[in-house]
Amino acid sequence: MQMTRPLKVKGKPVGAGKEPLVCAPLVGRDEATIGGELATIMAKAPDLLEWRVDFFTGIAEPARVLSMAREIRARAAAAPIIFTCRSAREGGQAIAISEEQVLDVYATVCRAGCVDFIDWELSSGTTRFAQALTLARETDTQLIGSFHDFNATPAAAQILAKLEAMQAAGADVAKVAVMPRELKDVLALLEATLEARQRLTVPLITMAMGPFGSLSRMFGWVFGSTVSFAVGQKASAPGQVPIEDLRLVLDVLHRALAPRQ
Amino acid sequence: MQMTRPLKVKGKPVGAGKEPLVCAPLVGRDEATIGGELATIMAKAPDLLEWRVDFFTGIAEPARVLSMAREIRARAAAAPIIFTCRSAREGGQAIAISEEQVLDVYATVCRAGCVDFIDWELSSGTTRFAQALTLARETDTQLIGSFHDFNATPAAAQILAKLEAMQAAGADVAKVAVMPRELKDVLALLEATLEARQRLTVPLITMAMGPFGSLSRMFGWVFGSTVSFAVGQKASAPGQVPIEDLRLVLDVLHRALAPRQ
Repeated sequence: MQMTRPLKVKGKPVGAGKEPLVCAPLVGRDEATIGGELATIMAKAPDLLEWRVDFFTGIAEPARVLSMAREIRARAAAAPIIFTCRSAREGGQAIAISEEQVLDVYATVCRAGCVDFIDWELSSGTTRFAQALTLARETDTQLIGSFHDFNATPAAAQILAKLEAMQAAGADVAKVAVMPRELKDVLALLEATLEARQRLTVPLITMAMGPFGSLSRMFGWVFGSTVSFAVGQKASAPGQVPIEDLRLVLDVLHRALAPRQ
Repeated sequence: MQMTRPLKVKGKPVGAGKEPLVCAPLVGRDEATIGGELATIMAKAPDLLEWRVDFFTGIAEPARVLSMAREIRARAAAAPIIFTCRSAREGGQAIAISEEQVLDVYATVCRAGCVDFIDWELSSGTTRFAQALTLARETDTQLIGSFHDFNATPAAAQILAKLEAMQAAGADVAKVAVMPRELKDVLALLEATLEARQRLTVPLITMAMGPFGSLSRMFGWVFGSTVSFAVGQKASAPGQVPIEDLRLVLDVLHRALAPRQ
């Protein structure tokens, strides 16, 4: 039973079509820390890596970013890499460079062929989003359009509208992360994901954050979310569960959802 | 974080307040089979047992039922026992005795002190439901009012109305089981459970059945369902997962929901 739309890199489904894809974040502050994270994380064989470059103290130095990106690429084996500078506006770290400079950093790593996906926020505005899209197209990189709300959960219809706006803006993948204030919000996120699976054509990545939201990190793929972020060494957002725990739950779910249940 | 209302037997919370309580069904056709089930199931230490007496070929013979009930009681150790004759109307086995005779069977086991809970369907009608309630009160047994739909899932508001009707009719516990036709139905069941947790005062037992419904058996307790039925030896309804699998998932959920996440 196929619940999610596959991510593809160079025409081939990531993780050979496994559901969901498990993505481990890299959140180290410097080269040594990220090197250590890579050692721990790669031993757990994630399907994807996300380098959260907003945590990296070298973000203002293109040469350091590029050198680190090359090392990550070399050590990531077959795992595709998502390159993400999460803005402080959407829950990322405060950084010293402008959004325009961030786009230059993206261009550097994309042109060097170090990453497979770039994450760009819809809230950056139409012009900047279009620039990120152009960069992605020029460098054969895929664009994940994203939206994060660390304070609350919009109504299901609004979450759906965000996902639709991302596809309409040209994103190859549409991502939404929200913070549930009550359990009902987790249901709203799942409902929006289910509806988006029917209405959209791009792969979806959705999650609720925090303790309640951890449910969606485990079960959200059944409703259509292609990727679940899980902790390899250190979490990048609240509610991420350890890769080992996620896999225990996924094994049980796969058995329970098998047709001959 | 307390997500469910506890079941209590003689004033003490079943399973010392564990969430959810894991209930293993006994569905054997005869004494030997049920004896074998007990051996297998008790090794897995469920929090509750449910004897589905509609599966028992001796149901028309009160002496056989009583003798079997005594054996189950003796071998159940500290696990409370739910006594249930599920009607064919609500997904149970076809049996040769009338509903009035079934009530006599209930009276026999309740008066002998062999069971802690009896399950009675709201659909049996007001008069019969009131008789079951009187029996429960007279014998210090608790009444689980129940409703099952093996074909579909009513809207969340209707599920809530069923649960409210059970409490209004005097049930000590309100139970609803539905069959999802699509994933959205699982969300409706969870939404109704969440709402009922706020509105009602009795403990709730809710679940969606079948492969999709298995999700609710694993995480429905977070939304307020006190009991999850899981397979000790053989399932009594579609979508039940093995006790071992359920516990793997519960361990992960408990860690993920812990306050210091």
